[in-house]
Amino acid sequence: MERTYIKDITPGIRRVSGFVENLRNKRTMAFIVLKDITGKLQVTLEKEKYPELAAIVDTLTLNSVITVEGEVVANEYVKMGGIELLPTSMTVESIAEALPIKADSDIDVRMDYRWIDLRRDQNQLMLKLQTTMTAAMREFLLQRDFVEIHTPKFIAAASESGSEVFEVKYFDTKAYLAQSPQFYKQMAMAAGLERIFETGPVFRAEKSYTNKHATEFTGFDLEFSYVTGVEDVMHMEEELIAYMMAKVKAAHGDAIKALFGTEVIVPAVPFPRMKLKDVYAELEKRYGYTCPDEVKGDLTTDAERMTKQLCQDMFGHEFIFITDYDAKERAFYHMRDENGVPQGYDLIWRGCEITTGAQREHRYEVLKKQAEEKGLGKDVDFYLQFFKYGCPPHGGFGLGIDRLTMLFLGMSIKEAQFLFRGPNRLTP
Amino acid sequence: MERTYIKDITPGIRRVSGFVENLRNKRTMAFIVLKDITGKLQVTLEKEKYPELAAIVDTLTLNSVITVEGEVVANEYVKMGGIELLPTSMTVESIAEALPIKADSDIDVRMDYRWIDLRRDQNQLMLKLQTTMTAAMREFLLQRDFVEIHTPKFIAAASESGSEVFEVKYFDTKAYLAQSPQFYKQMAMAAGLERIFETGPVFRAEKSYTNKHATEFTGFDLEFSYVTGVEDVMHMEEELIAYMMAKVKAAHGDAIKALFGTEVIVPAVPFPRMKLKDVYAELEKRYGYTCPDEVKGDLTTDAERMTKQLCQDMFGHEFIFITDYDAKERAFYHMRDENGVPQGYDLIWRGCEITTGAQREHRYEVLKKQAEEKGLGKDVDFYLQFFKYGCPPHGGFGLGIDRLTMLFLGMSIKEAQFLFRGPNRLTP
Repeated sequence: MERTYIKDITPGIRRVSGFVENLRNKRTMAFIVLKDITGKLQVTLEKEKYPELAAIVDTLTLNSVITVEGEVVANEYVKMGGIELLPTSMTVESIAEALPIKADSDIDVRMDYRWIDLRRDQNQLMLKLQTTMTAAMREFLLQRDFVEIHTPKFIAAASESGSEVFEVKYFDTKAYLAQSPQFYKQMAMAAGLERIFETGPVFRAEKSYTNKHATEFTGFDLEFSYVTGVEDVMHMEEELIAYMMAKVKAAHGDAIKALFGTEVIVPAVPFPRMKLKDVYAELEKRYGYTCPDEVKGDLTTDAERMTKQLCQDMFGHEFIFITDYDAKERAFYHMRDENGVPQGYDLIWRGCEITTGAQREHRYEVLKKQAEEKGLGKDVDFYLQFFKYGCPPHGGFGLGIDRLTMLFLGMSIKEAQFLFRGPNRLTP
Repeated sequence: MERTYIKDITPGIRRVSGFVENLRNKRTMAFIVLKDITGKLQVTLEKEKYPELAAIVDTLTLNSVITVEGEVVANEYVKMGGIELLPTSMTVESIAEALPIKADSDIDVRMDYRWIDLRRDQNQLMLKLQTTMTAAMREFLLQRDFVEIHTPKFIAAASESGSEVFEVKYFDTKAYLAQSPQFYKQMAMAAGLERIFETGPVFRAEKSYTNKHATEFTGFDLEFSYVTGVEDVMHMEEELIAYMMAKVKAAHGDAIKALFGTEVIVPAVPFPRMKLKDVYAELEKRYGYTCPDEVKGDLTTDAERMTKQLCQDMFGHEFIFITDYDAKERAFYHMRDENGVPQGYDLIWRGCEITTGAQREHRYEVLKKQAEEKGLGKDVDFYLQFFKYGCPPHGGFGLGIDRLTMLFLGMSIKEAQFLFRGPNRLTP
């Protein structure tokens, strides 16, 4: 007989498989709560009637894996959907030792046994959410003629951003691990691919122990050609996010509400846009937040957090594009307007930055000058070559799958990854 | 005016953008072949009528990027679709220096300027093919309730397979780069996720210079629970591949035929299956190939290649599953039957191995014993823990996106990646 997912169970003869989530083995009856990836089902055994099954149940431990066949019948006293399975056969697939962790064990202990921790409903939902989120974003982009690429993670030189890179022993030389696909996304523009995206790991050698940092996470990056300004990039992003969130809400909105108590709100498009200086002016006016002048070229951590309230109060919205940062605070490859204002933005969701995006500088001479101003010379020379032999105007942005997951569910980064990696965490 | 893709061009006032692929600048007329990601269009300028455009054309070089507006009209003398664009405005986006490579430059020189090499129609098609292939496989799996995961690339210990791993300086200690997500795919089974897949980079520190080897490539891996035998795994794979190839044929079959001269053949399901010893018997009988007894437990390179002919002659098929390898030649985590025969297979396409798949051993004690027999002790201990606390029976396989691309198009691995990485190749 074919196995049936618990979510699809209806009365009749059925075969189900899953983990023993709960087990009450009484004198005459045994009650098993069987959990598969789709739901939970009560298995009810009259022990006298099936002594050979009763003998099997005596060997079971919590979290053992079994396959059960029998008749599914309605029973109004059963909590789980008002049905139960009356088994006629039972196969033990795997017997579990006593579990070393509980749902409320310390997070670092749970991480040691992540595969057990991941069995919790919340964590399985977390991974289903990531699946839907990523699939929806890819679908959106494929509908718009984007090509998927896989850029190399081995690079010859420590790359652009401020964060530290990991060094790899590469035969008789050294390589580094890419901390962003930025340069290669742009290489794809010079290659005439026009519209590309990538999902892949990015590596950051930062010794940070915050709730937001990991040494390895999953980036979702895209880049596209023939933009006429940064507005095109913001528009692509807001459309992408609204599309993705509608899919997430449809697939998991109720479950997220039930298990995490948070609402998935599909954002209205366009998202609000504000210049950085206007953000500071409003924060001061509304909440008395005064930012020291010397750091006003960038968004401070405090201000970032406070934009959550600001967004809500000014626009009734969860997202905000912040533009017009100081060129000193932005990457050399952001295009600047005639006044030197970078044509880029940060996108903030629920008070947390989720994207930096921009129109890029595609003119070789201008780009070279901007790199030199930032003191970047030889290390980016290979990258500057991309712009010498013809390159369309282009822009793009990147999102972190893990960070989006955190914000959807109100988790720490450790909980929002399949398996967290940090400065002190390389196992399991 | 909105830009139109060249493939969508019809007569009327249009705006197009692209690279100058060809340029004939005559006394009274100028002819530009403009190429975008979707096609090519002739731009025909009467210089006397538009002297300011003629002046712009004089500055153009091959591979410069321009945006052109004007009227698209029918002209039966024009080769490219019988239409041409008569420009009324032209914007130069980027002027190209003289190109350092040609289409027939040596492959390693072309690799130095990969972004220029990628502009060729063949290479753009190669990346579109990869996009369709990967999207189709994900679509197939999402329809079957698979969850997408992102396993860590940083691992604490050099992992299972024979190939060498790369060492990373990881703060005050060392880490290694995963050469396969195998252990973590199985961790997901112990986590009760039931069905998972992953697309991501895998790293192999092999100093090989063959047409098939790279130090970094893109793996497409999946694993699923509650299999009743290796047949379930093979069946999943043949269905997946047939689905993918039908999508590839529909999207790119004609273009692949035109640009590469190769046919995309959607394979009939089920694929042929043969035991390894029967393959050797047939190779001997049909082609006089005698394999030395001491290597008959595995498929030799010669035999692998010859299966292309064998498949064709015996089954009129391009694919073949080969089963019943010697346990000595297979990974310790393959389940074995009561006679010690590994419950795994290789899948060969056009005489080249594209997959190793298997039902896995999920019983802790058996698995531990098999690991110890292979001399694997402490390094796999963290992995053995996954099976102590309940784990469903499961199986899975992995494919290489790059290798599939090679075989689709008859390319070397260097040409089948966005940007190749090998022992001597870390740039651009």
